[in-house]
Amino acid sequence: MLAADLPTPALVVDLDAFDHNRAVMSDAWPGVRLRPHVKAFKSTSLARRLADAGHVAFCCATIREMEGMAKAGLGHDLLLANEVLDTKRLGALVESGARITVAVDSDETITAVVAGGVREVLIDVCVGLPRCGCPPEEAGRLGDEARAAGLEVRGVMGYEGHVVGLEDRADREAKMAISMEILTAAHEIVGGEIVSGGGTGTWDSNRWVTELQAGSYLLMDTAYAKLGMPFRPALSVSGTVVSVNRPGGWAVADVGLKALGMDHGNPSVAEPAGAKVWFCSDEHLTFSVGPDAKAAQVGDRVRVLPAHVDPTVAYHERITVVQAGEVVDIWPVDLRNW
Amino acid sequence: MLAADLPTPALVVDLDAFDHNRAVMSDAWPGVRLRPHVKAFKSTSLARRLADAGHVAFCCATIREMEGMAKAGLGHDLLLANEVLDTKRLGALVESGARITVAVDSDETITAVVAGGVREVLIDVCVGLPRCGCPPEEAGRLGDEARAAGLEVRGVMGYEGHVVGLEDRADREAKMAISMEILTAAHEIVGGEIVSGGGTGTWDSNRWVTELQAGSYLLMDTAYAKLGMPFRPALSVSGTVVSVNRPGGWAVADVGLKALGMDHGNPSVAEPAGAKVWFCSDEHLTFSVGPDAKAAQVGDRVRVLPAHVDPTVAYHERITVVQAGEVVDIWPVDLRNW
Repeated sequence: MLAADLPTPALVVDLDAFDHNRAVMSDAWPGVRLRPHVKAFKSTSLARRLADAGHVAFCCATIREMEGMAKAGLGHDLLLANEVLDTKRLGALVESGARITVAVDSDETITAVVAGGVREVLIDVCVGLPRCGCPPEEAGRLGDEARAAGLEVRGVMGYEGHVVGLEDRADREAKMAISMEILTAAHEIVGGEIVSGGGTGTWDSNRWVTELQAGSYLLMDTAYAKLGMPFRPALSVSGTVVSVNRPGGWAVADVGLKALGMDHGNPSVAEPAGAKVWFCSDEHLTFSVGPDAKAAQVGDRVRVLPAHVDPTVAYHERITVVQAGEVVDIWPVDLRNW
Repeated sequence: MLAADLPTPALVVDLDAFDHNRAVMSDAWPGVRLRPHVKAFKSTSLARRLADAGHVAFCCATIREMEGMAKAGLGHDLLLANEVLDTKRLGALVESGARITVAVDSDETITAVVAGGVREVLIDVCVGLPRCGCPPEEAGRLGDEARAAGLEVRGVMGYEGHVVGLEDRADREAKMAISMEILTAAHEIVGGEIVSGGGTGTWDSNRWVTELQAGSYLLMDTAYAKLGMPFRPALSVSGTVVSVNRPGGWAVADVGLKALGMDHGNPSVAEPAGAKVWFCSDEHLTFSVGPDAKAAQVGDRVRVLPAHVDPTVAYHERITVVQAGEVVDIWPVDLRNW
């Protein structure tokens, strides 16, 4: 099938751009030095391409992602880089043979992990982002407590999420260094082999972590594109112009906000060139094409670049993989929901 | 099962609030005077409750919604209140016995409807919202063209979407009147029995339409709540506190932006009282609970009110229906995707 014949809206990945992004990151972070973040793509078919390239250790954000990866035979070394209390579902995976490690940052989460039957943990340390992770001064105590409870403490984790999107490189690196010094200090107290952290935005500057948690680099979005990295926009939503208002100078495509993550704002229209996004509705994207609306006809295809990759993918059932205008594969988004 | 034992995040509907909202609207717009908008809830189980209350004519925003409604036996009178070119799927529904009406606003969409085998249309008129709908001066010509092509023209449609969310009631009503005068004028030229339009925000003031397209009133969100209508917040996302940072004064729940429509901004936290939302990440909601974080403990439940109902529902597999703290039903969100 030609990509131009796809029913729309369709979530599309350009395979050449994807492979380029995969290869650039693999060169810098080979094998298990990279721990690809499944939350960015939620697809075992995509994950398998990474495993085939030697990246067999993954991290996840939800229990459902962990379960799906294990079921797909991708359970060599799965980290739940998130705190959860419903750990029994994860314990069941341990029994089935997958290697399951879970982030903990409190007495309660350690208790839940033990009760659930999970055996390995990382101590999650807050390195500046107001989210999960214990205050750094509690890391040592929690590590001791976890070991006393019979858990294997593999090391520490800390995500500099407040830093990865900063557009000024010097600013980004300076603030990352502060975060990573906090994490390194916690690691010295906690012990273990792993220092896990980082992301697409700090892929070429974070030299503190032993493994990089990156996912967005594979597909990319307009927010990360601003950082001037060598990763190409591989992800787009393909749409069709369904209405053109010539007196008003606008056109409407069938790529609405239910097909796009909107927390980073409006998407961009890559094709037709010159299109300017006005707003998104549930199932519509209104864009201007100049006073005569000459650049758009009903039935034309549009290519929309999302502002945020992760919540965009989570809205779709499948990723259609395209190479040179042909559909070459379908990757089900099989790790959605919870 | 108790609602408090639900795995989280869970999309929850309070049945008493839902029934209240349904009844208030049914009193004002009984039977087929109301054409409930399926896009707001994407669930045939929910739609069946409306049909049981006499609302057997529905409108949809996607072909998938139309197909699912017909398959569920809810195809008495289905309006696709949207322009599409892929009308063959809709023509197949006509053959199977469902009554299918489609909005058209151009030569191209009329051609597509004829080619697809759909037999009934509404002329969609732009009444001020820069989206679909023909310029009003083209409505008569398109009506003639549709009839010449053998289509039954049931009337006109025009959605005052630029007006329904205006918080000042007088402003909302004044602008609605302008829009509806445009629609009425187009109707006089086009003919047919139907003038379809309106929504939750104009439910008690739009006296121009013969049928009201409303959907959000059933579940509600914080954006519509600002309008001071008698509809109650029936929809929430139930979450669990997974991390508390006492020195920082914040807590983290497992209700992230992949569980929430974010185009209208951040959600609100209804419980615990006093919680103030800082930001959402993919799977996390960070909120402040005062300097001692006394109001939140790891394991506590939170109740999150979305800012926009439609894209929130579209992220979830199911709606869990709760009454007096007990789970009493599950409504699958079976009309998602395209």
